Amino acid sequence: MHLRSIAATIALAAGAALAATAIAQTSPPSSPLDEPITPILPPKQIDLGKAELGKKLFFDPRLSKSGFISCNSCHNLSMGGSDNLPTSIGDRWQRGPINSPTVLNSSLNVAQFWDGRAQDLQEQAGGPIANPAEMAFSHTLAVDMLASIPAYVREFRQVFGVNTKIELEQVTAAIAEFEKTLVTPNSRFDQWLLGKADALTPDELEGYKLFKESGCIACHNGEAVGGNSFQKMGIVEPYKGEPAEGRAAVTGKDADRFSFKVPTLRNVELTYPYFHDGAAQTLAEAVDIMGRIQLGRHYSKEENDKIVAFLRTLTGDQPTIILPILPPSSDLTPRPKPFD
Amino acid sequence: MHLRSIAATIALAAGAALAATAIAQTSPPSSPLDEPITPILPPKQIDLGKAELGKKLFFDPRLSKSGFISCNSCHNLSMGGSDNLPTSIGDRWQRGPINSPTVLNSSLNVAQFWDGRAQDLQEQAGGPIANPAEMAFSHTLAVDMLASIPAYVREFRQVFGVNTKIELEQVTAAIAEFEKTLVTPNSRFDQWLLGKADALTPDELEGYKLFKESGCIACHNGEAVGGNSFQKMGIVEPYKGEPAEGRAAVTGKDADRFSFKVPTLRNVELTYPYFHDGAAQTLAEAVDIMGRIQLGRHYSKEENDKIVAFLRTLTGDQPTIILPILPPSSDLTPRPKPFD
Repeated sequence: MHLRSIAATIALAAGAALAATAIAQTSPPSSPLDEPITPILPPKQIDLGKAELGKKLFFDPRLSKSGFISCNSCHNLSMGGSDNLPTSIGDRWQRGPINSPTVLNSSLNVAQFWDGRAQDLQEQAGGPIANPAEMAFSHTLAVDMLASIPAYVREFRQVFGVNTKIELEQVTAAIAEFEKTLVTPNSRFDQWLLGKADALTPDELEGYKLFKESGCIACHNGEAVGGNSFQKMGIVEPYKGEPAEGRAAVTGKDADRFSFKVPTLRNVELTYPYFHDGAAQTLAEAVDIMGRIQLGRHYSKEENDKIVAFLRTLTGDQPTIILPILPPSSDLTPRPKPFD
Repeated sequence: MHLRSIAATIALAAGAALAATAIAQTSPPSSPLDEPITPILPPKQIDLGKAELGKKLFFDPRLSKSGFISCNSCHNLSMGGSDNLPTSIGDRWQRGPINSPTVLNSSLNVAQFWDGRAQDLQEQAGGPIANPAEMAFSHTLAVDMLASIPAYVREFRQVFGVNTKIELEQVTAAIAEFEKTLVTPNSRFDQWLLGKADALTPDELEGYKLFKESGCIACHNGEAVGGNSFQKMGIVEPYKGEPAEGRAAVTGKDADRFSFKVPTLRNVELTYPYFHDGAAQTLAEAVDIMGRIQLGRHYSKEENDKIVAFLRTLTGDQPTIILPILPPSSDLTPRPKPFD
């Protein structure tokens, strides 16, 4: 089933490319390489068996102590790969410390988590499972749970070899492989980058021009329109919010306090509320605050509207996910403990 | 996309019917009408637009106060339409009073909820949204939330007419229409009923014979193998569990205390743990307890194994669900309040 989703992604991207070729005859030539934002490319070299297993694990709440919270609870693929809450809800309804970043296009990030403490998706995937404030399980218990379910054991063998004994490293590798498929090509902005000159309205194009000229592009650039650097929150004016350690937690440097990974702006229309603390509810508010505290720029209502209009063109095709059917627990599977 | 899932369901059922015809030439004729269990039939007269809207609502956690709990949280379509917990987790991690029944094949139930207090799926759908221990929202707030989202407003107009102002009745009608599609045809048992003589092993057939002869079939019969009557829990021996009001909450009759709607046994392999209190973790345990307290029958290990083997043949094709992409909140949409 997963093949179908990936095939669709590729077909759409190919369609966009063909459209670009066709239009190049009549429109002024447009070269994506001239822009600081580049189109999202479909994923390459995906191991489909591993990704399909990873999809099951991504949706399986038995990786949590309660049996109620899965990766998809806070990175909901119905809602832009996020939970649309200021901070997430963890085991026993604990309030998380930080806004849940979108899983969409997260393979393009330079590192994972707001402070970049995980090098890649695989390293990230192990974190929430064992975090007492999130899924509140342990890696050992997660592996034991999976090993008690014959259909999982068979699927791990199929993917990792017939003599496999399930290990955490395989669990996180499979989840990461699935997450690599979660890209969102074919946004209207990418259609424009690829040569469809009428894909954007004049207001949206003016918004993009403002976005570049006023300096947003300095941090929000590249394929993910962000995600590729760490920056201080509050360069010109201090950010009004709770103190936060940010990147300093990783580097140990005082200068990195309140420094965070720049979030991707891909699908930003879907990933509200904004910032590490989820304090900005709307795009208008986020653009206003960013302009002031990062650039010393006070956008007029009209300018703000145009930048927001541009940002909405970054919503790409959302991954087509066929809900996995999870293999049932066996009589030997330890039962979840939501209330212990 | 939903069309595809329904078309697949129909194609499978048609395939099974054709197989039955083909086999009828060489196998002893088998008439489903001779058995007290009848095959699940694909749904008829589905309004696809309404069902597709209902699918979005079923997966939308914004129908809860917290923005975290959707219908699918407790009726998880990855896990047999249940949450596989003894009792559900509600708003602020409240412990629910009763086991969450499967939504699969629930259109076949004589009434909804364990005590049958809702006449049909539409009446049921409104319950959890406004239950302070479940989704903890209100019907007014739910409707206001939907009315603030332009893409929802358009979809309600498309389904219910261009002058529609969203009402709870439409919300629940759409959810109910989606739930009507959640049937699970083509189990191995149904294949056998429809003429595929070798669909069951000798042990499974003996299990079915025992299931009939020892009296389970008196309550677990028909298309859903249950769901069509109310029965007292503990006819021969009292059930050892917390006191429960059961059907008496609806009828007001003392005699109906500890009486519940007989649950469907379709997909019972997936809907553990069992009983209204989720106290039986395994099928073996459930069969043992039911035999003793309902029938005065102490099954041997071998008999128990055979009945369980039969029960596992009732797992049908799970609905193919393409995860809906939910329309984003607008700037005017009230934000969820998970921690207030």
